Amino acid sequence: MRYKITLMYDGAGFSGWQAQDGQTTVQGVLENAFQTVLRHPVQVIGSGRTDAGVHALGQVAHIDVPERLTQYRMRQAINAVVRPHPVVMTRFQKVSDDFHARFSAKQRQYIYRIHNTPYPPVLTKGRVWHVPKKLDVGAMKQAAAFLIGKHDFSAFRAADCQAHSPVKTLDDVKIQRRGEEVIFTFKARSFLYHQVRNMVGSLVYVGLKKWTPAQFKAVFEGCDRTKAGPTAPAEGLYFSKVVF
Amino acid sequence: MRYKITLMYDGAGFSGWQAQDGQTTVQGVLENAFQTVLRHPVQVIGSGRTDAGVHALGQVAHIDVPERLTQYRMRQAINAVVRPHPVVMTRFQKVSDDFHARFSAKQRQYIYRIHNTPYPPVLTKGRVWHVPKKLDVGAMKQAAAFLIGKHDFSAFRAADCQAHSPVKTLDDVKIQRRGEEVIFTFKARSFLYHQVRNMVGSLVYVGLKKWTPAQFKAVFEGCDRTKAGPTAPAEGLYFSKVVF
Repeated sequence: MRYKITLMYDGAGFSGWQAQDGQTTVQGVLENAFQTVLRHPVQVIGSGRTDAGVHALGQVAHIDVPERLTQYRMRQAINAVVRPHPVVMTRFQKVSDDFHARFSAKQRQYIYRIHNTPYPPVLTKGRVWHVPKKLDVGAMKQAAAFLIGKHDFSAFRAADCQAHSPVKTLDDVKIQRRGEEVIFTFKARSFLYHQVRNMVGSLVYVGLKKWTPAQFKAVFEGCDRTKAGPTAPAEGLYFSKVVF
Repeated sequence: MRYKITLMYDGAGFSGWQAQDGQTTVQGVLENAFQTVLRHPVQVIGSGRTDAGVHALGQVAHIDVPERLTQYRMRQAINAVVRPHPVVMTRFQKVSDDFHARFSAKQRQYIYRIHNTPYPPVLTKGRVWHVPKKLDVGAMKQAAAFLIGKHDFSAFRAADCQAHSPVKTLDDVKIQRRGEEVIFTFKARSFLYHQVRNMVGSLVYVGLKKWTPAQFKAVFEGCDRTKAGPTAPAEGLYFSKVVF
């Protein structure tokens, strides 16, 4: 029996998604919780690995187990067992055997939250990146428009990225000011390692008027990571949704 | 010179607003910060006292000092000094001598956030009250309508409330579902001690169908605190705005 699980977590409580000996990871905590509840080892396959500090609103994973299980029972049981850790299972659904959390994903969505006021965040501390100087959202939108479509994203690819190719298709980018925050939404089938945080770092250069949108375009087209902006911190990033 | 200051804080970091020896309070932390920056004692007068655990999005206070000060300088300086504590000054404005944070307030606004899903909150932990069973927002709205206007609020008054009279005028109540949350907004010139948390506790009884809106009305009109619902926890409450 294959089950799809949907997860929400606070990245600050984990050394990232992937199970590693001696580290508290989301995958590790979940696999232990399933073992505690079902009394046999269970492998949890995620839609995507998140780095240490990166949050999730809607990470998706799947498990294969012999038992017939209900959402009511499993959500209660798993959430009770993982309790000391900041992760919850929001959904638990029976799916067909050809569903795969990673390979069936048609689109992944990420949100990046910037706290854009002269004073630091208090109620959202650890959940946002604090950029004190007011960002020019209009200029950032102009720059972001260059990213949409199929491109070589080498300028925003981490040095240790394992992908075969730096070419990816970005389906959409949205940037909006909401109260104290500037919120970015990115949608693509898949992303390069650190791609979202690197795109945000360079878009913020535009927002701060260090670069014009045209300069941003030149950096993007130059495909040289060393010429691009900094990597935005993990704490503002949310793996928000997976579309299948 | 009188200055109006606007504050945001995480109530979990304080034993409430009011300065008390040996306790970390918002007023105490601010008075110490002003003394550090200005090098003389400063009294901070708030619009209202918040209990331990209650948050603020827009608490207002005033200070009287001989110096001519700018928002640019003071906001930076005070926020740097208070930094280990989860409080920030969002605004610092010169006001006329007849402005008084407490007595000039025409309306105080509170928000109450309930996390209304079967699974507990992780990214908003400590900022919401978790009510796992789905609340009937329509029924709560019907019940809340009885609260609007001038009434004897004894049913929702804490035993140790110091107000002269239990009669208050509630200007408005709004209840809306927003994603995982049910959010209440209350507006009045002033509130009795624990009034908002007590109103929420009884409205939740209606939302859970323990009471009909008519039963809620009877409890409210009975003016007997012991017949009303529980006090909702402090962690979901935000002092959101003061209108002058």
